[in-house]
Amino acid sequence: MRRIKLTVEFDGTHFAGLQTQAKGERTVQNTLEQALAQIPGAIPKVVAAGRTDAGVHALAMPLHYDTLDPIPPEKIPLALNGLLPPDLRALAAEEVAPEFHARKSCHWRAYRYRILNRKTPSALLRHYAWWIPQQLNLVAMRHALEHLVGEHDFKAFAVKEKRPTVRRIYRAHLTVLTPDIAQDAKNEREIHLEFVGSGFLRGQVRSMVGTLVEVGLGKRDSQSLGELLRTGTRSQAGPTAPPQGLYFVGAGYAPWGAA
Amino acid sequence: MRRIKLTVEFDGTHFAGLQTQAKGERTVQNTLEQALAQIPGAIPKVVAAGRTDAGVHALAMPLHYDTLDPIPPEKIPLALNGLLPPDLRALAAEEVAPEFHARKSCHWRAYRYRILNRKTPSALLRHYAWWIPQQLNLVAMRHALEHLVGEHDFKAFAVKEKRPTVRRIYRAHLTVLTPDIAQDAKNEREIHLEFVGSGFLRGQVRSMVGTLVEVGLGKRDSQSLGELLRTGTRSQAGPTAPPQGLYFVGAGYAPWGAA
Repeated sequence: MRRIKLTVEFDGTHFAGLQTQAKGERTVQNTLEQALAQIPGAIPKVVAAGRTDAGVHALAMPLHYDTLDPIPPEKIPLALNGLLPPDLRALAAEEVAPEFHARKSCHWRAYRYRILNRKTPSALLRHYAWWIPQQLNLVAMRHALEHLVGEHDFKAFAVKEKRPTVRRIYRAHLTVLTPDIAQDAKNEREIHLEFVGSGFLRGQVRSMVGTLVEVGLGKRDSQSLGELLRTGTRSQAGPTAPPQGLYFVGAGYAPWGAA
Repeated sequence: MRRIKLTVEFDGTHFAGLQTQAKGERTVQNTLEQALAQIPGAIPKVVAAGRTDAGVHALAMPLHYDTLDPIPPEKIPLALNGLLPPDLRALAAEEVAPEFHARKSCHWRAYRYRILNRKTPSALLRHYAWWIPQQLNLVAMRHALEHLVGEHDFKAFAVKEKRPTVRRIYRAHLTVLTPDIAQDAKNEREIHLEFVGSGFLRGQVRSMVGTLVEVGLGKRDSQSLGELLRTGTRSQAGPTAPPQGLYFVGAGYAPWGAA
């Protein structure tokens, strides 16, 4: 039996999330397992590095599965892509040690949240960004982001989380860019919020983003994020940002910062 | 009666093109006219600056229609967006002189073609770019582009065109960028081909792009584009690039280069 680490990209728009919770749902997990079931020798059971909700995308989600199939790993993506729908693509595969575990061996996960900041709504990005027409105070948002870096109890940002709520964020960063397909570059910008952490609680990234946007809109001050980490009061956090702006960007299997 | 210039954005994925050719098709024109029919006083007949095929997108397509409705123009986008599906958005509206004509008054049109150049296919950009896994020779492509600028007979690049085939291209430009949502910025790039011209023949931009990509792949040399313009032989041109990479970017109602 060989263990394969597989990296996939998916467009979350038409998936009911990554992980299967009820039978018959079109999840990424179900769709992958149905494809693997068509490969003789492959065990149709996948474990992913992270979980993502319905509508959330992934640029590079690592997962693992086991197989008796002797196919060279570099041929797996092409073979799988012939069996997968176009909104789910296998990008890379490699054979790993049998003790490798896509979730448990993972040292860090990276997420990006994409905001479209312009006056008019977008047809093209309706499934791929959160549209915010108001002016956002980016200086205040950057100040607020600094509070999140380090080891904290993120209870205030968790949704229905039963595990312990202490996590470490290695990096929290805001970048501004002109959209790839900007129509009116002068009055249009994208704001990307990037987070790298040891792991994230259920709903944590979207809840942090919703709270940061309240800072940007002047509805709360940047200090309030420190306060939230100290008190852990969910009801004081901002709203949960919508799923379509969130991307799982990647995960690492060596400590963050290691070569 | 007032004439309104309306600018719309649309995601072409689920439209059978802009212009209605057969009854019952889900075209941009049909969808807009159905929305206008719900506004008392509006004449549900639109004329657009350009035509786009099924799958082709628009960032800012100007069009006009007439109305007896006294609504202030700045309120039209919000009113229309309440009646339109999310893949078609009204961006701006203004009242124009009765002799304004979205197609006939137009001095220039701008298109962008988006190529995703990386080894692996993309789930997220499957409807929004042409995926090309091979290396492309950008120097040769830029040389080839220069041949297209100026007034030429573009017959070799036209598909089912009955009008005269002489057009003027003001600008033809290639830019390379890192995708907004790049997963692996080192091994991934977007190539954007931009064209501004007095007008374009049916299929012209996609046919030019297909030919330019053959230059990039080393299947033909950059001189062959000059040859094609001289001979006008359609069968010597490259294949038509797929629709999902093409964006109608905008149109202008003053001469190109005027303030």
